[in-house]
Amino acid sequence: MTTAAGSILDPLETRTPDQRAADLAHDLPELIAHAKTRTVAYRESLREIEPASITSREALAELPVTRKSDLISGQRPGQPLGGFSPRPTNRLELVFQSPGPIYEPGSRTGDWWRIGRFLRACGIGPDDIVLNCMSYHLTPAGMMIESAAAKIGATVVPAGTGQSELQARAAACIGVTAYAGTPDFLKVILETGDALGLDLSGIRRAAVGGGALFPSLRDAYAERGILCLQFYGTADLGNVAYESPAMEGLIVDEGVVVEIVTPGTGQPVADGDVGEVVVTTLNRDYPLIRFATGDLSSVLPGMSPCGRTNMRITGWKGRADQTAKVRGMFIRPEQVAQFVDRHPDVIRARLEIGRSGEQDTLDVRVETADGTVDESAVSESVRQIFRVRGRIRAHARGGLPNDGKVIDDRRRYDDG
Amino acid sequence: MTTAAGSILDPLETRTPDQRAADLAHDLPELIAHAKTRTVAYRESLREIEPASITSREALAELPVTRKSDLISGQRPGQPLGGFSPRPTNRLELVFQSPGPIYEPGSRTGDWWRIGRFLRACGIGPDDIVLNCMSYHLTPAGMMIESAAAKIGATVVPAGTGQSELQARAAACIGVTAYAGTPDFLKVILETGDALGLDLSGIRRAAVGGGALFPSLRDAYAERGILCLQFYGTADLGNVAYESPAMEGLIVDEGVVVEIVTPGTGQPVADGDVGEVVVTTLNRDYPLIRFATGDLSSVLPGMSPCGRTNMRITGWKGRADQTAKVRGMFIRPEQVAQFVDRHPDVIRARLEIGRSGEQDTLDVRVETADGTVDESAVSESVRQIFRVRGRIRAHARGGLPNDGKVIDDRRRYDDG
Repeated sequence: MTTAAGSILDPLETRTPDQRAADLAHDLPELIAHAKTRTVAYRESLREIEPASITSREALAELPVTRKSDLISGQRPGQPLGGFSPRPTNRLELVFQSPGPIYEPGSRTGDWWRIGRFLRACGIGPDDIVLNCMSYHLTPAGMMIESAAAKIGATVVPAGTGQSELQARAAACIGVTAYAGTPDFLKVILETGDALGLDLSGIRRAAVGGGALFPSLRDAYAERGILCLQFYGTADLGNVAYESPAMEGLIVDEGVVVEIVTPGTGQPVADGDVGEVVVTTLNRDYPLIRFATGDLSSVLPGMSPCGRTNMRITGWKGRADQTAKVRGMFIRPEQVAQFVDRHPDVIRARLEIGRSGEQDTLDVRVETADGTVDESAVSESVRQIFRVRGRIRAHARGGLPNDGKVIDDRRRYDDG
Repeated sequence: MTTAAGSILDPLETRTPDQRAADLAHDLPELIAHAKTRTVAYRESLREIEPASITSREALAELPVTRKSDLISGQRPGQPLGGFSPRPTNRLELVFQSPGPIYEPGSRTGDWWRIGRFLRACGIGPDDIVLNCMSYHLTPAGMMIESAAAKIGATVVPAGTGQSELQARAAACIGVTAYAGTPDFLKVILETGDALGLDLSGIRRAAVGGGALFPSLRDAYAERGILCLQFYGTADLGNVAYESPAMEGLIVDEGVVVEIVTPGTGQPVADGDVGEVVVTTLNRDYPLIRFATGDLSSVLPGMSPCGRTNMRITGWKGRADQTAKVRGMFIRPEQVAQFVDRHPDVIRARLEIGRSGEQDTLDVRVETADGTVDESAVSESVRQIFRVRGRIRAHARGGLPNDGKVIDDRRRYDDG
């Protein structure tokens, strides 16, 4: 199927919700069984789980969350993937390193990270020449674009990061028609080209990721006749969600299941609420189940007018990892979840950390049905769980901000 | 065929000299016809050539040399390869940029640069995990190793240049068994690993290129139990020649024809004499015919004891591009060739540039059969061709050094 904007949709992208749910009912049990029987890590964590019973998003939501710390704690020399891949290391094609360090596998073939759909959504095709400004060194970002371009038959100039003058000259001489990289760097190349008197007007598409795309930057590219669309992905998961020319949120990729959960828990939030992005990937080489990305987003209700029928999410809303230190004690989202669990009348909680004089302050704001709470019982839990005292403030349902934050560190570090 | 050292030879590597010559008699006319009919550049430069007549190294030596300056002068926006490729730019898989700038094509598949043979000669195979420290950005070096590893089924850690601490940690955790990169950088990684207390003893092979490998460095690697072998290749040509465990010179790759010529000419030197490396590649995407590399080497007579039967060359002997400026005038190897051509009694010539007081000096040393020369005629040619005056010194046959130099700039710039 080809849209009016000329981008090509694959059959998975236009499935009805029923068909997608039916396919998931088939794919999920297989994935869970594969992960449980073939990987060291999931053999342990899914021991009690019957794979055949995991046939829906609801059933999936009962499984434990996989955290980055799990990937790291499972690392041994010769087992860089923490036991999360069924393949021996020397039967992987590629191994990358991200900060942590966390190691990720990859493959040169078959658009392993599923970025091809995004390039197609940008209108990039087999006649295009893509300047690939993602780094190829240690991180998989460069190879993600490389293998997506291979899939759609586009030419690639493997440019990497930096050297903007050489890149601008290359783009002009080679006749580059599309950019792939972080949102900002194309601006550097274009302005370098302007200063050198180069004609870079052949660049008509920009496929960006790896950082926030500000609307003003997108507008600046549009003024030069460049359509700039973004994707959201990670080194572990590949493509998670991507924009189409409709530019209404990011459409979830067909190779993953996305949930939005309360940070520190595995519990899905209500549709539309901000929470942590948790992703299950159907990749057999690296089957991550309910992987907590640490990023905040929310579901955007409805369906994209571009013809892609999958769930949409809003753009990046910040980091979910809200760990803070209060009077010498670490406070973690998981503890906030534990605190809420202990009090059936508490619907949500939010810890606000401030500074008064030379002292940290802690406000524990809780949401209950009627806006009242047993203050002494709650204070006691705060002391036991967080090991610091806090001031309790109760709110009626809907009284807390919907921004995904369970720990809000309001201290300012920039003015002493 | 597998050698005693465990490296696997492909059938082309063990051809008899007669078989290789017969194959060349078949391949060369096809290549010449392809280049002449399909590329803009060779349509012009080979206009007078009958492809069917180019069936041997001797016939090949009659064709014009292709210089880097030809690649650059043929560049137009949208024609980055200077008319030397039959493919439109957007039908190439990859396009790279090297200093010049010169642009080179590439492919992700089929070991396009033919480095797989070299990795095999190093004993690297499908069970190995290769830390690839060649850069992937703009230059094809990283992708050369990448596609060679793909060919032989080895795992790659795309590490690139720099970040030695992260690389050392990655090598230890992932269990890297082989290094590929420039000769020096492995030393940096090993010493970083030592300082961090990492176990990098799994690294047993080092496949190096892109710079001189000094014997002391090879010895230092050997003391750690690492077999270090080098290859000689260029961004335009891919693999040109490579060492085997026999470590007797570099064996010419089976995808190229190597000639050693007098710098500034296309004339082959006598076997064993130092001259410029000129390479013809049988690659159909980028058929370079008699491409002057600018590097000096010589033929090493005899055959390698490792079982590979192709011609061998000695290691890198310096740069053939000996252009120098004397009293404000550029002097080029091509002019030296022109000068020799003008005097039938002159066999070879060598211009030695020195400094006396604050003045450049020029000694024109010529080799003749009997060591005598018509000084006034030769002096007149020097003035006309080089536009500076020089002192003539005549030598009998064999009186000039055999080091490939036709212009020897002996001025020292480092002590003022």
